[in-house]
Amino acid sequence: MSQPGYHVAIAGATGAVGTEFLSLLEKRPFPLASLKLLASARSAGKTLRFKGEELPIEELNADSFENVDIAFFSAGGNRSKEFAPAAVRAGAVVIDNSSAFRLDPAVPLVVPEVNGEDALTHTGIIANPNCSTILLVMALAPLHRLSPVKRVVVSTYQAASGAGASAMRELEEQTAAFLAGDEIVKSVFPHQIAFNLFSHNTAIDDSGYNEEERKMVHETRKILHEPNLPVSATCIRVPILRAHSESANIEFAGARPSLDAVRAALAAFPGVRVVDDRAANYFPMPLDASGEDDVLVGRIREDGSHPNAVDLFLSGDQILKGAALNGFQIAEYLSVRDAVKGQMAGAIK
Amino acid sequence: MSQPGYHVAIAGATGAVGTEFLSLLEKRPFPLASLKLLASARSAGKTLRFKGEELPIEELNADSFENVDIAFFSAGGNRSKEFAPAAVRAGAVVIDNSSAFRLDPAVPLVVPEVNGEDALTHTGIIANPNCSTILLVMALAPLHRLSPVKRVVVSTYQAASGAGASAMRELEEQTAAFLAGDEIVKSVFPHQIAFNLFSHNTAIDDSGYNEEERKMVHETRKILHEPNLPVSATCIRVPILRAHSESANIEFAGARPSLDAVRAALAAFPGVRVVDDRAANYFPMPLDASGEDDVLVGRIREDGSHPNAVDLFLSGDQILKGAALNGFQIAEYLSVRDAVKGQMAGAIK
Repeated sequence: MSQPGYHVAIAGATGAVGTEFLSLLEKRPFPLASLKLLASARSAGKTLRFKGEELPIEELNADSFENVDIAFFSAGGNRSKEFAPAAVRAGAVVIDNSSAFRLDPAVPLVVPEVNGEDALTHTGIIANPNCSTILLVMALAPLHRLSPVKRVVVSTYQAASGAGASAMRELEEQTAAFLAGDEIVKSVFPHQIAFNLFSHNTAIDDSGYNEEERKMVHETRKILHEPNLPVSATCIRVPILRAHSESANIEFAGARPSLDAVRAALAAFPGVRVVDDRAANYFPMPLDASGEDDVLVGRIREDGSHPNAVDLFLSGDQILKGAALNGFQIAEYLSVRDAVKGQMAGAIK
Repeated sequence: MSQPGYHVAIAGATGAVGTEFLSLLEKRPFPLASLKLLASARSAGKTLRFKGEELPIEELNADSFENVDIAFFSAGGNRSKEFAPAAVRAGAVVIDNSSAFRLDPAVPLVVPEVNGEDALTHTGIIANPNCSTILLVMALAPLHRLSPVKRVVVSTYQAASGAGASAMRELEEQTAAFLAGDEIVKSVFPHQIAFNLFSHNTAIDDSGYNEEERKMVHETRKILHEPNLPVSATCIRVPILRAHSESANIEFAGARPSLDAVRAALAAFPGVRVVDDRAANYFPMPLDASGEDDVLVGRIREDGSHPNAVDLFLSGDQILKGAALNGFQIAEYLSVRDAVKGQMAGAIK
């Protein structure tokens, strides 16, 4: 990659996650040489504001990636499958937010705080995990380092944002219609989301688990390098705008560590904030997690139904740590590594 | 009790549950001789419509229960503690919706489909269980009869109605304010409930479990006559109006029954409706459960993380089966028993 800065492209720049990449590039220190915004033909010709300038949106195609060092993909799995190989051929590192390559053994699946070093093994594509999975492993990883985890049972409370910006609008529009006594219009979700919740509407296979739940199982195993870790997930969509929550029951293989040790391990883990005030009854809430980088973890307690298990509850911003921020942190991880290599090369010279 | 009908009183007639008792008395066949509405001094003198007539509301006091056969109490634990003994002394059977007497060994705690016969051991008071507990045991009981259950891990998605009619209004008012960009006013709940969710705001003890969760543990054990059944609950309030949902992981002591057997046991259980269409991705939702008598159970699947466990998801109306309907069914159970005893006495004569 060319120094002093990276030539960056965002494929899917107009989506909920794409616009967050722009915001992160504005807010966080990153050696940016240039920025190219890519989207569907529908958005081509429009502009997005970045650091006070109007940047043009170009149509995403196979020729979009000349001279691009890092390409963030967040335009859906089909776009990733179609155009990520072209980006790699053009010399870019693709950080892909879709599920297209996540379980490909040749593609690292990375949460930088957990398995950042896996990113260095890439051969062009690095996958950004599923949002619910990222939030879960942020709490699981420090506990698994503290004492090996034997089994995880998790139930989610997933925000509309996981289905994109249009789903967030649908939640607001349906809610307004409900309060006004008007007809509820369903467009993004198959069921009413206003004042309702439902099983995640991804395909269910013979196991009885839906695709979102299978992602949580298989991606968690891959990120933690535990290919057989028993995980059961129940994924539920709730009428929340942009932060996911999860209720997790975590069983240790050996004796249960003390709650002090569990809390200390979580508090020491970068990107986790322990919010666990029993006296004030103050715990993680999506309202507090929205717009925040940290995953909030609380309700940390000994499981009264099993001598080796703990229960906890977490909330994290689905668009930030659940998607754009984690992808951006992968780029930051690579850039720091590049910089260190450059300094070491300089020192050796 | 005097035949042909019962003299019934409703203590807390103006609340969310109290008004539902009125509605049930209108809709369901029940040998009613007279109805007395009781509430706080604030409501005394007002009226409520019942079968086309305006019934006066009287102030609840120790003298309210003369000639009353059945007294439904739904005016909070303190009112139950203060006035239920007076009702019993006056000769009434109290069906109490509060938590005041639920764990009293002398008081039966009854879900009629599960342990109706316990109601017959009463000495004046019969307790109506906690709403989340009722919904859970409706799914647990048939499975426990099919094959003994060894452990339950449950996470709830609880509607505002559990905190009363004013909490439902607060959810609607906060939601309207949020959409209008106005200030969110908190009155019933300690946290914003509009587009937010939070750990159930009852007191947490040294175990780390809140009171709602402890109710689910101890009441489930009492209803199922399994005083040591391991249960872990995580109780979460969600922005839903009146139906609770629960994600339950149920481990059997022996080999896991087939899913066909599990589905059949649930489908055959009165008061349970299996809603489990994997192909159409149609499962229990609070929107479908609201206003319905049945508890909807679905997402029935083998737990991929444990050879002896199953996962399921349920939704049930918190005000109906979670409160008023269950209490009313206790009265129906007693009245049928009275009628049967009367017929048998007649037959013997």
